[in-house]
Amino acid sequence: MNLPARRQGSRSRGVVLACETVSRNLALELLSDAVPLPEPTGAALGATATRAVVLVGMPGAGKSAIGRRLAHRLGLPFRDADTEIEAAAGMPITEIFARYGEQHFRDGERRVIARLLSGPPIVLATGGGAYADARTRKAVRTSGAIALWLRCRLPVLMRRVAGREHRPMFLNADPAEVLERLMAARHPLYAEADIIVDCSEESPDQTTRRVADALAGWVPERRLPVALGERGYDILVGPGLLARAGALIAPAIPARRCVIVTDATVAGVHLPALRAGLAAAGITVLAEIAVPAGEASKSMGVLEGLLEQMLAAGVDRRCAVVALGGGVVGDLAGFAAAVALRGLPFVQVPTTLLAQVDSSVGGKTGVNLAAGKNLAGAFHQPRIVLADTRALTTLPSRELRAGYAEVAKHGLLQGALWSWCEAEGARVIAGDQAALAHAVIESCRLKAAIVADDEREESTEGGRALLNLGHTFAHAFEAECGYGGELLHGEAVAVGLGLAASLSARLGHCAQELPGRVIQHLSDLGLPVRIADLPRRFTVEALLGRMRKDKKVRDGAMRFVLLRAPGDAFTSADVPLEVVAKLLWDEGCGSGGT
Amino acid sequence: MNLPARRQGSRSRGVVLACETVSRNLALELLSDAVPLPEPTGAALGATATRAVVLVGMPGAGKSAIGRRLAHRLGLPFRDADTEIEAAAGMPITEIFARYGEQHFRDGERRVIARLLSGPPIVLATGGGAYADARTRKAVRTSGAIALWLRCRLPVLMRRVAGREHRPMFLNADPAEVLERLMAARHPLYAEADIIVDCSEESPDQTTRRVADALAGWVPERRLPVALGERGYDILVGPGLLARAGALIAPAIPARRCVIVTDATVAGVHLPALRAGLAAAGITVLAEIAVPAGEASKSMGVLEGLLEQMLAAGVDRRCAVVALGGGVVGDLAGFAAAVALRGLPFVQVPTTLLAQVDSSVGGKTGVNLAAGKNLAGAFHQPRIVLADTRALTTLPSRELRAGYAEVAKHGLLQGALWSWCEAEGARVIAGDQAALAHAVIESCRLKAAIVADDEREESTEGGRALLNLGHTFAHAFEAECGYGGELLHGEAVAVGLGLAASLSARLGHCAQELPGRVIQHLSDLGLPVRIADLPRRFTVEALLGRMRKDKKVRDGAMRFVLLRAPGDAFTSADVPLEVVAKLLWDEGCGSGGT
Repeated sequence: MNLPARRQGSRSRGVVLACETVSRNLALELLSDAVPLPEPTGAALGATATRAVVLVGMPGAGKSAIGRRLAHRLGLPFRDADTEIEAAAGMPITEIFARYGEQHFRDGERRVIARLLSGPPIVLATGGGAYADARTRKAVRTSGAIALWLRCRLPVLMRRVAGREHRPMFLNADPAEVLERLMAARHPLYAEADIIVDCSEESPDQTTRRVADALAGWVPERRLPVALGERGYDILVGPGLLARAGALIAPAIPARRCVIVTDATVAGVHLPALRAGLAAAGITVLAEIAVPAGEASKSMGVLEGLLEQMLAAGVDRRCAVVALGGGVVGDLAGFAAAVALRGLPFVQVPTTLLAQVDSSVGGKTGVNLAAGKNLAGAFHQPRIVLADTRALTTLPSRELRAGYAEVAKHGLLQGALWSWCEAEGARVIAGDQAALAHAVIESCRLKAAIVADDEREESTEGGRALLNLGHTFAHAFEAECGYGGELLHGEAVAVGLGLAASLSARLGHCAQELPGRVIQHLSDLGLPVRIADLPRRFTVEALLGRMRKDKKVRDGAMRFVLLRAPGDAFTSADVPLEVVAKLLWDEGCGSGGT
Repeated sequence: MNLPARRQGSRSRGVVLACETVSRNLALELLSDAVPLPEPTGAALGATATRAVVLVGMPGAGKSAIGRRLAHRLGLPFRDADTEIEAAAGMPITEIFARYGEQHFRDGERRVIARLLSGPPIVLATGGGAYADARTRKAVRTSGAIALWLRCRLPVLMRRVAGREHRPMFLNADPAEVLERLMAARHPLYAEADIIVDCSEESPDQTTRRVADALAGWVPERRLPVALGERGYDILVGPGLLARAGALIAPAIPARRCVIVTDATVAGVHLPALRAGLAAAGITVLAEIAVPAGEASKSMGVLEGLLEQMLAAGVDRRCAVVALGGGVVGDLAGFAAAVALRGLPFVQVPTTLLAQVDSSVGGKTGVNLAAGKNLAGAFHQPRIVLADTRALTTLPSRELRAGYAEVAKHGLLQGALWSWCEAEGARVIAGDQAALAHAVIESCRLKAAIVADDEREESTEGGRALLNLGHTFAHAFEAECGYGGELLHGEAVAVGLGLAASLSARLGHCAQELPGRVIQHLSDLGLPVRIADLPRRFTVEALLGRMRKDKKVRDGAMRFVLLRAPGDAFTSADVPLEVVAKLLWDEGCGSGGT
């Protein structure tokens, strides 16, 4: 321990401070440069020891006691933030508070912590108020350190702080009251830690073992940034995000209040977990609004009712709208967020594979009109997307398969992902968490890259239009079948992908075997792939009529997305109508008027 | 005439061109530098002679004949664009066409015209196809020259081109057919000229006299740019813009098609003029949709009906939505444009003073909910705003006065405009065109500057919130009176302005005489200014209750806009409630719960 030596050094700065000519704030300004970086130890580093560990929690939670033991166990240096601050400032924290006020102390504290975390990994114990400061939390987050909250109940803390009644925080006050008040204010903020370990009466060594186990077993959620400038946001993917929703969402929204929009089916399965996750971070839920499940809820009427309920619940411009559910809920709630008070912060918590890989990325929101699907809407980017892969395990198998069709589409657009699909797609359908996470994150990565280039779908060539691979056909099938659930969007896309590949092959753009590969793979995973697999019969004329009305028609020309190979797609406005008609005919569509 | 000399000079360049080593495109690239600038003549310049005059029209319209006479009359040099091009290129236009193609010729022609117009004023006759080129029209517009179309009917043209049948354009074709086809294609584009003069069988001197008269009598519309980066747009203010709507709108929208949204009352008065104005520029109107007049049309139900009609009419993403009417139509149509197909180009043609000075600037669109006014909407900037001051002469006097309240508000925010209001406001109410134009353009200038700084109303201090001067009170009166027309928005604002000034004085922020000045001026112009002037009685509690629900309430604190003086306003969140209550009480509001 070399603390005494550094204390001496800092005491001499204290002497300087006493001199009248020194700036009142110099002590704290010095802090950022005065703290010596920890030297790496020679000890072997464990698996988690490549990242610093920051212990947060209430006074008496054992941050120093556990921290020292944990550092020893991990072979990392231990630092105590308060000690480092006092050493650097050359005066006790109470004096810094008294002389410069809390805000100034917090600024210095944040700089010290950031500096300590900018070097090789350490175990760092922080003062009770440090992680309660939003900018310090952000500094810890961006440093790459793992924040770990030692959570204690009040009786445990009371026993631990016994004998510390002389501390300034307890002066002239009932310690229990002080602690209770602080816990109410800080626990929602501590909840943003990456790992939470509950501490009880056990020995410090026992707690340390459990902390080390938690660190060893910790799998961080995967985080994909969507680069849209000031509208950029992160997509988080991993198992169990619902339970941590509040902690993950809080840094991305302007105030800790929201309304939840979901549907009756999803509410029964996932709402309790989300509710608890939001409560843990102190996010007030002004209203939980469940619309009927199903496409019919994407209507202007349901939107109006939703808006009235949101406003009646007292939303203001800093209140977030959290969409919990599939594509219908996301599109509807996102549109409501876009137009309520001319725009509220929006959070997507997609619970279907389709929504996780598709509708949660790109900012498209909207409802249907009598004239067609998604004809009224807005581009409104979410502040954050939580894709909890564990939530997908409750999905009906048919819905999981349908969502997979969009993964396959992204695979065909991306290339390497298509090979992965052919090799590993079955694991996705089987609900394998790692495979699901890979499918979601790679789909989102592909879509996010395309969206970042063409946010408002204005490119005349390529751009977002590429995401419509297979969709010109799919939309026609859906329009013919209605939107009552007889044909799922993903099922229509599966057939559409086969047709897009076939069309590409007939026009000589891609290898003749590609359509067969596409059809075989999707068929192997239990998806409909031929028009004959669909629940209705169609005429060529009816389908072509629908295609002509597609939203992507520009100046009257139908546009198709075609493939040269997996990973090499392009948009084309000059596909001869008769080639399309022949393809549909060969696939078994009849002739005759609609 | 020095044409022969320059022709000789260019012929020598033609020799160079014949040499094989010269770049194929050099002739046209040379054009931009090769044209000698016209020298200013010593003749006295007329009133219009500070700007160049560009004559456009069909072959045979008399551009050269009239142009020479006009130049003589105005004391300006005359230039013929085709002659200059041939001189610079050293070959006839037919040869340029044949060797390099039309597009290349047009590019060179545009450069020659831009160069000719970059010097001192001239009269310039252009080739028949020049002004039909969108980029050449833009070059003429941005040069500051006045474009004047010599419009002829077919029989007149036929007689004039008699004897020119050897021209390449008539080769192997019926001249009448050729001219008719060209007229159909070009007249909508010529219509973008600033001035249109119809030509008949009269002598060139007679036509020249009429052209000169048109130039002398021409008052250009005033153009105010709203600086919002890529969402920036122009507000055009002046008399008679409806009749020229198509020509003014066409350069600002992506395609020559639109839907018109209006209300039943306005349609009867202004729709024919707008329809004709759009037709003149060849803008196809896919649908004319009239909603019922009045605030009740700002509803989700009417919005849905409007969207269905727009989609049924076949709008695509390049089709503009043109709002013709007051604030209700503008807010509703703007919101429809914002959400139809996730965003269509939008054009505002406001026909009330309130809409011209207020709701047409700033991009706020929306409808009312049961929970309150304007609670659902979007920020959606127009591509262009046409504020036709002549349209205001048909307004009922009560509506004109009500609109004036917003002018007075802008005056109080701006300072100099308030002094102008006190001196000239009565002329606005009397319908004086120049006064109306001044009131509209200065209001828009003030509002546009505020909006440019705070497009999405995100400033916590000042910013767009300043535009709510008097509105915290006004919204409360409106909410209490309902929105059936018993109390107009502007009338509520008039009373609100007096109260805001009174509140400012009571809090010691402004001179004690300011409230009296505000009240006196608005009262002089026939507006209600005291709470007692309003059609209902209010309780203090009811009004305070309404104010607390205002959309601008942030984290529970009511915000007021206060004045230090005309031109010096600020937002404040710490106005003691009891001061507001006392003010309302003193103004005659009773006590007792609602």
